[in-house]
Amino acid sequence: MKRVNVSSAVGEYPVLIGSGLLSRVGEIARTAWPGRRALIVTDQNVARLYLDPCRTSLVELGFEVESVIINPGEESKTLDTLYSLYNACHAAHLSRIDGVIALGGGVVGDLAGFAAATYLRGVAHLQVPTTLLAQVDAAVGGKTGIDLPFGKNMVGAFYPPKAVVADLKTLQTLEPRRFAEGMAEVIKYGCLFDEALFSALEREEVDLAELVYRSVQLKAEVVARDERDKGERNLLNFGHTIGHALEQATKFSRYTHGEAVAIGMVTALKIGERLDVTEREVRSRLVRLLEKWGLPTESEIPLEKLVPALASDKKRWGSEVQFVLLQKIGQSLLKPIAIGKLEQLLGEVWSGE
Amino acid sequence: MKRVNVSSAVGEYPVLIGSGLLSRVGEIARTAWPGRRALIVTDQNVARLYLDPCRTSLVELGFEVESVIINPGEESKTLDTLYSLYNACHAAHLSRIDGVIALGGGVVGDLAGFAAATYLRGVAHLQVPTTLLAQVDAAVGGKTGIDLPFGKNMVGAFYPPKAVVADLKTLQTLEPRRFAEGMAEVIKYGCLFDEALFSALEREEVDLAELVYRSVQLKAEVVARDERDKGERNLLNFGHTIGHALEQATKFSRYTHGEAVAIGMVTALKIGERLDVTEREVRSRLVRLLEKWGLPTESEIPLEKLVPALASDKKRWGSEVQFVLLQKIGQSLLKPIAIGKLEQLLGEVWSGE
Repeated sequence: MKRVNVSSAVGEYPVLIGSGLLSRVGEIARTAWPGRRALIVTDQNVARLYLDPCRTSLVELGFEVESVIINPGEESKTLDTLYSLYNACHAAHLSRIDGVIALGGGVVGDLAGFAAATYLRGVAHLQVPTTLLAQVDAAVGGKTGIDLPFGKNMVGAFYPPKAVVADLKTLQTLEPRRFAEGMAEVIKYGCLFDEALFSALEREEVDLAELVYRSVQLKAEVVARDERDKGERNLLNFGHTIGHALEQATKFSRYTHGEAVAIGMVTALKIGERLDVTEREVRSRLVRLLEKWGLPTESEIPLEKLVPALASDKKRWGSEVQFVLLQKIGQSLLKPIAIGKLEQLLGEVWSGE
Repeated sequence: MKRVNVSSAVGEYPVLIGSGLLSRVGEIARTAWPGRRALIVTDQNVARLYLDPCRTSLVELGFEVESVIINPGEESKTLDTLYSLYNACHAAHLSRIDGVIALGGGVVGDLAGFAAATYLRGVAHLQVPTTLLAQVDAAVGGKTGIDLPFGKNMVGAFYPPKAVVADLKTLQTLEPRRFAEGMAEVIKYGCLFDEALFSALEREEVDLAELVYRSVQLKAEVVARDERDKGERNLLNFGHTIGHALEQATKFSRYTHGEAVAIGMVTALKIGERLDVTEREVRSRLVRLLEKWGLPTESEIPLEKLVPALASDKKRWGSEVQFVLLQKIGQSLLKPIAIGKLEQLLGEVWSGE
């Protein structure tokens, strides 16, 4: 088992990475909160595979366990589902000394984490991510939240878990497209911070445990320095400004998050080239690596659909975007760009090129 | 103007106390967040009296101001109202650098504070309490939240404001019963921590500014030592365990919060006497002082209605209550009492005596 400690304003918590860790959730929960009750939040797909082993592990350690199963997918990240989780907390008789276990991907983690952040003004929780995307990104860093009809992650809290338990075995049951989605974020870390990771991926010289470990380490370093997203943590949005817009323009049905980010990263490189920031050979290396994982690198969605989605994100930044650019692989920077200017640059690089 | 600094995990914030401070909200907001937008949250009663001066003060300092007006009363503290506040934040184009202003009593403060805590994972806010109860209690200490059908304040966050602006002038328009409600909490602070305050109240030798100032100071000291309600802050629940049960048993319509707390404090003294903790003369002093403000000291609600309400709060503590007892005026302690035992003691003191 590997371990990365993440520091946060309210103390340090470990990310535990290893094969078969699901059977140790009970033992980890035992040290995470003093109460004897636990509520597992999961979705239908994950429940079929992993709810029983997770529950068994908790029951063996003496917990009274209840569970609530949500519909899979981003459409569940609503205030209505949140309300159903509060009801489940109540039905499970959770008190302030008990805890919640988020067993699943990013949607489950965000929802269950936000319920834990706010039920009784905060109860303990564990993140048990079962997708590569959640293990290397969503479950680490304490961001929780839900969507509103007018935007993704519009409501939420910074609320770190007591521990993140990343069982590598659960990744074996992922569909290839879901695995590749996580790889997009791993590749992103390489682009931003770690040329060695990037070139190891190019050479296919990195095993799964190492890949998750290194990604979590890189994210943990950024989060430790900027938990509340005031500066450096914005670097993690590389590929996400355009990626989010693309997801929104296609109503979250056409691309996985990772696919949208892959296209967003390549587009950000094109913009960086226009601004004389990004070296030319960066893009060909990135495109090659993304293609190796079956990830898209461009989109035929018309610019006219993309720009309104980009503009609707305006409120999150005022009139400027902190846009992430690469100089070279492993070397990144934040550049404030006015929304209008960004739209113009996007117009120049989106079609053709 | 008097000033009390409250320390919290995320930094210090001032409580400003004085007459006419409403006209300075704009100037205070200017230092509280860098953006140029503000959303005022208030209720219909407060809007009629104070929305215009508050808005004017903000507009004069260059803010773009929107407002949202909720129905007055505890019935508004729902997930539905919260959702309407999120929509108002969106309609006001709030970004992460803008802020919310909670203008009103405890309900407005709790709701607007929780919306601010969670919109975009947290935007700045000011508390501008316009009731005595909110000035001396609710607006200080960073607790925000909403009710769920199965309980009060079941969902929320610890989220301190950038500043609390307590304009004493707004207290002039309070109905006497609303003013007395706040006095119950002031008297509570005297009971718990400050014999000098209590006896000054008995002698009627304390002016309004001093009374608010001293109360805020006492609360700030407790909150600084125990922001997240793990220990000492529970002392502030003096009179509240039974008070809450009484409010719930009467569906929040029979008593004001302060009235229920007044009855709860007297009942807690009776229980303290049974346990040989509370000196006998304490109760007669408290009853006399409460009566001076027209506050009730006993209730004819039957025990059979009270006990289920008490038990339904169980989930908040496990099987024990951290019950607050007084030894004498100004000297208090927390005593863990099993729910069953508390019900028995309550049975002994509730009728007759």
